[in-house]
Amino acid sequence: MMNAKQYEESLRKLDLQVYLFGRRIENVVDDPIIRPSMNAVAATYELAHRPEYEDLMTAKSHLTGKKINRFTHIHQNNDDLVKKSKMGRMLGGHTACCFQRCVGMDAMNALSIVTYDIDAKYGTKYNERFLKFLAHVQENDLTCDGAMTDPKGNRGLAPQQQSDPDLYLHVVEERQEGIVVTGAKAHQTGAVNSHEIIVMPTIAMREEDRDYAVSFAVPSDTQGITYIIGRQSCDTRKIEQGSIDRGNQIFGGHEALVIFDHVFVPWERVFMYKEYDFAGALVEKFASYHRQSYACKVGVGDVLIGASQTIAEYNGAAKASHVKDKIIEMNHLNETLYCGCIACASEGHREPSGTYCVNVLLANVHKQNVTRFPYEIARIAQDIAGGLMVTLPSEADFRSPAIGKWMEKFYQGTEGVSAEDRMRILRLIENITLGTAAVGYLTESMHGAGSPQAQRIMISRLANLTEKQKKAKILCGIKD
Amino acid sequence: MMNAKQYEESLRKLDLQVYLFGRRIENVVDDPIIRPSMNAVAATYELAHRPEYEDLMTAKSHLTGKKINRFTHIHQNNDDLVKKSKMGRMLGGHTACCFQRCVGMDAMNALSIVTYDIDAKYGTKYNERFLKFLAHVQENDLTCDGAMTDPKGNRGLAPQQQSDPDLYLHVVEERQEGIVVTGAKAHQTGAVNSHEIIVMPTIAMREEDRDYAVSFAVPSDTQGITYIIGRQSCDTRKIEQGSIDRGNQIFGGHEALVIFDHVFVPWERVFMYKEYDFAGALVEKFASYHRQSYACKVGVGDVLIGASQTIAEYNGAAKASHVKDKIIEMNHLNETLYCGCIACASEGHREPSGTYCVNVLLANVHKQNVTRFPYEIARIAQDIAGGLMVTLPSEADFRSPAIGKWMEKFYQGTEGVSAEDRMRILRLIENITLGTAAVGYLTESMHGAGSPQAQRIMISRLANLTEKQKKAKILCGIKD
Amino acid sequence: MMNAKQYEESLRKLDLQVYLFGRRIENVVDDPIIRPSMNAVAATYELAHRPEYEDLMTAKSHLTGKKINRFTHIHQNNDDLVKKSKMGRMLGGHTACCFQRCVGMDAMNALSIVTYDIDAKYGTKYNERFLKFLAHVQENDLTCDGAMTDPKGNRGLAPQQQSDPDLYLHVVEERQEGIVVTGAKAHQTGAVNSHEIIVMPTIAMREEDRDYAVSFAVPSDTQGITYIIGRQSCDTRKIEQGSIDRGNQIFGGHEALVIFDHVFVPWERVFMYKEYDFAGALVEKFASYHRQSYACKVGVGDVLIGASQTIAEYNGAAKASHVKDKIIEMNHLNETLYCGCIACASEGHREPSGTYCVNVLLANVHKQNVTRFPYEIARIAQDIAGGLMVTLPSEADFRSPAIGKWMEKFYQGTEGVSAEDRMRILRLIENITLGTAAVGYLTESMHGAGSPQAQRIMISRLANLTEKQKKAKILCGIKD
Amino acid sequence: MMNAKQYEESLRKLDLQVYLFGRRIENVVDDPIIRPSMNAVAATYELAHRPEYEDLMTAKSHLTGKKINRFTHIHQNNDDLVKKSKMGRMLGGHTACCFQRCVGMDAMNALSIVTYDIDAKYGTKYNERFLKFLAHVQENDLTCDGAMTDPKGNRGLAPQQQSDPDLYLHVVEERQEGIVVTGAKAHQTGAVNSHEIIVMPTIAMREEDRDYAVSFAVPSDTQGITYIIGRQSCDTRKIEQGSIDRGNQIFGGHEALVIFDHVFVPWERVFMYKEYDFAGALVEKFASYHRQSYACKVGVGDVLIGASQTIAEYNGAAKASHVKDKIIEMNHLNETLYCGCIACASEGHREPSGTYCVNVLLANVHKQNVTRFPYEIARIAQDIAGGLMVTLPSEADFRSPAIGKWMEKFYQGTEGVSAEDRMRILRLIENITLGTAAVGYLTESMHGAGSPQAQRIMISRLANLTEKQKKAKILCGIKD
Repeated sequence: MMNAKQYEESLRKLDLQVYLFGRRIENVVDDPIIRPSMNAVAATYELAHRPEYEDLMTAKSHLTGKKINRFTHIHQNNDDLVKKSKMGRMLGGHTACCFQRCVGMDAMNALSIVTYDIDAKYGTKYNERFLKFLAHVQENDLTCDGAMTDPKGNRGLAPQQQSDPDLYLHVVEERQEGIVVTGAKAHQTGAVNSHEIIVMPTIAMREEDRDYAVSFAVPSDTQGITYIIGRQSCDTRKIEQGSIDRGNQIFGGHEALVIFDHVFVPWERVFMYKEYDFAGALVEKFASYHRQSYACKVGVGDVLIGASQTIAEYNGAAKASHVKDKIIEMNHLNETLYCGCIACASEGHREPSGTYCVNVLLANVHKQNVTRFPYEIARIAQDIAGGLMVTLPSEADFRSPAIGKWMEKFYQGTEGVSAEDRMRILRLIENITLGTAAVGYLTESMHGAGSPQAQRIMISRLANLTEKQKKAKILCGIKD
Repeated sequence: MMNAKQYEESLRKLDLQVYLFGRRIENVVDDPIIRPSMNAVAATYELAHRPEYEDLMTAKSHLTGKKINRFTHIHQNNDDLVKKSKMGRMLGGHTACCFQRCVGMDAMNALSIVTYDIDAKYGTKYNERFLKFLAHVQENDLTCDGAMTDPKGNRGLAPQQQSDPDLYLHVVEERQEGIVVTGAKAHQTGAVNSHEIIVMPTIAMREEDRDYAVSFAVPSDTQGITYIIGRQSCDTRKIEQGSIDRGNQIFGGHEALVIFDHVFVPWERVFMYKEYDFAGALVEKFASYHRQSYACKVGVGDVLIGASQTIAEYNGAAKASHVKDKIIEMNHLNETLYCGCIACASEGHREPSGTYCVNVLLANVHKQNVTRFPYEIARIAQDIAGGLMVTLPSEADFRSPAIGKWMEKFYQGTEGVSAEDRMRILRLIENITLGTAAVGYLTESMHGAGSPQAQRIMISRLANLTEKQKKAKILCGIKD
Repeated sequence: MMNAKQYEESLRKLDLQVYLFGRRIENVVDDPIIRPSMNAVAATYELAHRPEYEDLMTAKSHLTGKKINRFTHIHQNNDDLVKKSKMGRMLGGHTACCFQRCVGMDAMNALSIVTYDIDAKYGTKYNERFLKFLAHVQENDLTCDGAMTDPKGNRGLAPQQQSDPDLYLHVVEERQEGIVVTGAKAHQTGAVNSHEIIVMPTIAMREEDRDYAVSFAVPSDTQGITYIIGRQSCDTRKIEQGSIDRGNQIFGGHEALVIFDHVFVPWERVFMYKEYDFAGALVEKFASYHRQSYACKVGVGDVLIGASQTIAEYNGAAKASHVKDKIIEMNHLNETLYCGCIACASEGHREPSGTYCVNVLLANVHKQNVTRFPYEIARIAQDIAGGLMVTLPSEADFRSPAIGKWMEKFYQGTEGVSAEDRMRILRLIENITLGTAAVGYLTESMHGAGSPQAQRIMISRLANLTEKQKKAKILCGIKD
Repeated sequence: MMNAKQYEESLRKLDLQVYLFGRRIENVVDDPIIRPSMNAVAATYELAHRPEYEDLMTAKSHLTGKKINRFTHIHQNNDDLVKKSKMGRMLGGHTACCFQRCVGMDAMNALSIVTYDIDAKYGTKYNERFLKFLAHVQENDLTCDGAMTDPKGNRGLAPQQQSDPDLYLHVVEERQEGIVVTGAKAHQTGAVNSHEIIVMPTIAMREEDRDYAVSFAVPSDTQGITYIIGRQSCDTRKIEQGSIDRGNQIFGGHEALVIFDHVFVPWERVFMYKEYDFAGALVEKFASYHRQSYACKVGVGDVLIGASQTIAEYNGAAKASHVKDKIIEMNHLNETLYCGCIACASEGHREPSGTYCVNVLLANVHKQNVTRFPYEIARIAQDIAGGLMVTLPSEADFRSPAIGKWMEKFYQGTEGVSAEDRMRILRLIENITLGTAAVGYLTESMHGAGSPQAQRIMISRLANLTEKQKKAKILCGIKD
């Protein structure tokens, strides 16, 4: 297993084509906008070496029996699934942002199931290929980007109906040694902090779409791949002097548009090729795992609750009954989310491949709550924080010889609380509810792993209404 | 293990002092108001003999190794706790009401822990006594009423401060062979369907309250015990001609005020006697188990969802997008509740006595959601049902030669749906959202196992704010 | 203007065909199930004579200039509309139930507009006929039932497509002196307390449905009309001995299925005849007025809040911060409803006929909130009330010499509060949240004047998205 | 009345001490961060000259009879109050941000009442002074900052108990020609766009606090006044190249900490001086008016709804039933807010001074909803917008020759929708839900004109529980 330093060094060796604010970034690792997101991934390496987190952060490889980072592990039982949820909460609480490494883990677990199932039907060798890739990932403790979402263009049209065929990533050429693909994947969390990109189709497909039914893995610096970093609310505070106004001093996240322009993939890295009838299953498996992964938001919620309690104390309001009740409500909502990610894991099941999969209904129910509760928790945090959170002048003003004294004087809180500490905690709440981390805590909670309606469709499919109707009819005496 | 018939016969042997509508009930088992609630308890006996439910409904006694009804079992691991939750949902779905047997199971599990802990501190023999009682319960497959809630009088005053000392049940005399107690327990679910009553104190106590710190078990027909049956919304529909208007044709529930007027308890049935410092622990343990028990409401929710889907179909509205979305929302809320009762069970832990206990924080979070979601599910059910649910004439009108034809004609639904079936399903929804079952599905969901504020206090205590604040301070750079 | 006594006497003169529990009621006015609902209508007569309510309860007829009961008035300005809302809240607070007279007022106001508009298009004389009818109503201070909702059968089919043509009320014969109609109207609030029934179509219609596009008024005891009283939750408590268990000692409501079996209507009472293109307008106008009428629920909410505060005091819990906060929330939600019924009135407008009509968008928004907030207010009321609300034994038990003493003893509240008063207030809360009044406060709030989806369709139509999009596009620089 | 150009010129003449990012701003009007907020105030001047807005934007002065900008008007009847609400919505829709001029209008209306009431009690001449000031404001069409909120330090202590006496603004010296004050006012919206600052105390006071009971007006560039501009989420996007990423191309807002360091106020500008018993009344009147002023958020909501509908169309999702339903919900919530600001205005009343004041209960209820609904509307907007809102690269990337083509290609929406237009509308939604405008639409909605708990306290005071309890007791037969 790599440590944080080794991980950072491994990234330096990559030759990525990354663009930000219209220019190519030469040194990705040290770019001040990217750096905090690299730090967050690095934490997944660092904590794996701490004894107190060993149980959560590491696992025994079912391939080699060696101790590996859990992010490269294929779940072997429900306990693994539960630990995944707990690891998510723990890391969310450690970083207060997206640590970006779940998506690769979820992609690999999904592929471990679906490659097996394809092989079972078609006699192909995808699972063998995939396991070889997996061994490479485990051995080298790699971070993988799981790339699913295509740009999609007109949402009313199937892939092959789009005016521009590249709006869904597809095979454009088949060669003896492999395939060539073109297209793009949007919203790629942590893309430039990854060693590998694992591509999957984004929707269930029909025969006409078979060129789009493709899954594979390529090194992140493969020729033809370009990254354009998306901007976040308050992103440029990371390049300002001082650090208070960033809120989170250490960690952050990033998303990128990843463009595939005639990218070559050797056959041994291809895990699905035109088996369109398995595209839906791969999407569903990945989505289910990834909906569970929103366990991390419980951890971010922990930080936001801690920050809210702290500002309440600094404001001298922590004992007001309405404030105490609001803190309780934040905790209640946050722990309700926790119940969701624990339940879908502890109710997991074994797939034919041997991989354990979460309870799909409960994973969807969990994610649906994630599209609601963080918004309410954030609203309450803003209630407790007070208006100062959005009217506070900059750190530069605070450091200014001319006017810093006024801020020092007028922003002091209760006895012994400095204006600076009050500013720091307010900036953290701002960061999570309006700033760079709000992208992850709110909007990504809404759309990541599928928008709310996607979960509702799954809930609808899995709710077993017939059984429920049967119970009702018996009780009121209706004979069918 | 008894079967339903044996259970019914065992009740006939009891000589209970039961009052209803101002008169003593001579034949409790056959009283039409009580009967449906007896049916519900009987279901816990009947289903234990069905192979498909054996795993959920039975367990292996840790005392004797024999197969016993799970309602008499002491949880030996987290899997037992999870099965308890699943048994609750299953039975809730089978009966659509309170099946009354959880409270005794929860009392026994709580006592199995606390008697052990008292003994450990004081060198007493409560645990031994309790286990003897437990063996008797398991051997005879008894139903126990767990009696906790005192009338409480002025809630601002401690037990011994009340103007009437009996407002909390207490010891009034100590004899060589045992003790004599006086007081009452309110809201006793299923009291007259029980063989034994297990009494526990209702709040944490101080030294001054030591006469109130008492726990024991007595046969339900012990001299000095009187039952007054509480009335429920629509209770008298059970004594009307016909049965459609009852909604639920088979099952129901009841609550009683249980009065203890100088009731003698032999020492071997006393499980706590003046150890006031353990009153709080017993309350908390029982409450935690019992908050988990609200798993049953998920089952009632299943029935209500099934009924809603059915009436939507009968009305010809099941395919309207807003109806489909409302059914999804009902399922979503119901499964969120399910996550709560699964998570607090799968995250259980071993107590020193060997008994497994639910995760207390999550059990409280679960119950808090139970005070909210069933109300919203009921609201949506009424939305889907349509106004006819509350304007439908009586079954007597439907059977009337003079006007029945009009109801037949004007209450027909979509093709092939008879007015009678439409009436039946509407009456079931009325039953659960306004009628006798609403008592259990709504108001008892609010107050059973403690009112909402009780859970909020527990959440507040267990939320570990200090840890959360530490995380927040590190991230924004505050040094304590 | 009649007073309450005169109103009661006027009802005695009617020869109505009323069925309840399978039998014809001979003396409707004195029937114990019906009586409380008659009392509620009578209150609309009685309060009109009290000086303190004169301003709200009476108006000056625009036909005769005489003082009339506001329930027979055609709104002449926005102030009339605002007073209507305030009258509704006041009477809701006075009766805590449906006082049944709005629907006739709303029907007459809608007809005053639409008859005028039909005449303007077709040169008919409906408005003249209608005004003659109105003069008769005002002169004799009559209560009118506004009858709109047909049974509707299969909701996916138009009136003339139904398997049974009578599922929508329609003309079956045209005679020289008038028309003959057959069909039924469901959910008729206060039907048997009315002197006249005003029939209107229930949906917008097409040419094929022209026989169904009919509106008229007939005396309530016209030959061929039969009433079947719908049953309510807890209805039979009204025929029990004692009165505490009824909750509301004085007032109630009722709904009936009204059957028209070849009922003759003379031409002078026909207000629309096959002008199918105006059916939709009549429905919309009536619905808008009637959605405003849900102002009454604010008054019922006042009573429920008052009852909740009272039981909190009786329980000794009124000063707990969480209870105070819940009372505030109840008030907040209730006053939010009040804002809706005031705003849609104060923003009213003049129709071509001279009648003032509410702001249709805001009336729909108001009613939509009425489908939500009373449920939440009721939930909070149950929270504050405590579980005793549903476990309280009957009044008969309380009066019993054998056990009444136990209830007296154990149900006492804080100092000086008798068990009886505690029972009374709890029964009132039960009445409004689960019992006969819950039919009005909850389910009727959901479906009366149109189910939630009906309002959402209207909101969708009236929201003027184009204008809002224009604003947004200008601000972000999109040029269309 | 000034027009926009004249207003801008009038600001150039001010010599304000303004700090931003640690440096003094030399040219406030043209500063790119401040400019958009100046534009928003300028709109209140510009629109007053447009015939279509004359009715809303202008009024007749009760002092001179001349046509004046409504922002300088004292409300003479309820119609004035209603027009104020409508003006707020209209301008909110025009600017999608805070236009900053309400606070001065509200301060003046509050002072018009309270100066009159102080005079009535103490025979002072404050009202006369105030009216002279008002005439000056009306004549010159000035923008006034209403300055209420002090820093407050330890919220558990009264003003004179604070460790630093300046934490509440107070009189430090009394001279023959006037008084000298020291302290600060926080969160001052639009401060540097104002000609005058009207200072008011921030809480009810006792005799010990009399030096803090002071109200006055001074020109905004009076010696001793310093402004420190608060930073907003995404503020620096205003100084970036290009303008798409700003979201709102034209308008914005700002808040400032305003420091008073020994500022001299001549007597003729002092409107309250140590009459501590009127401090509470002034706060309450101002707060009530200002809670009404949150009518503006309905206008911002209009823009957000328009933007959401637009992106739904661009995404090709506008016809999905769940999207349509979400748009309806946004409108429903927004119009519910509208009902609040209309109802509290149309239910206004005349104060002794002749000024009309809003219904205080309803104004508080309205504002309470403003602390909730915009958050939910924003959440739905993010749901409809899709994840692209937070992963979209910068305008600089879009303009880049190297990679702009990829964005053009992959961000195209449905047929005919350019990537640029899609970016523009997404950036507007980001602006309102996470960016500079979120400060106003969300956090200011929470805390402006008083935090949620402040409204709850007022609702508690004004709810008239006694009256409600009386109604309940009569109905259930309790005799007091």
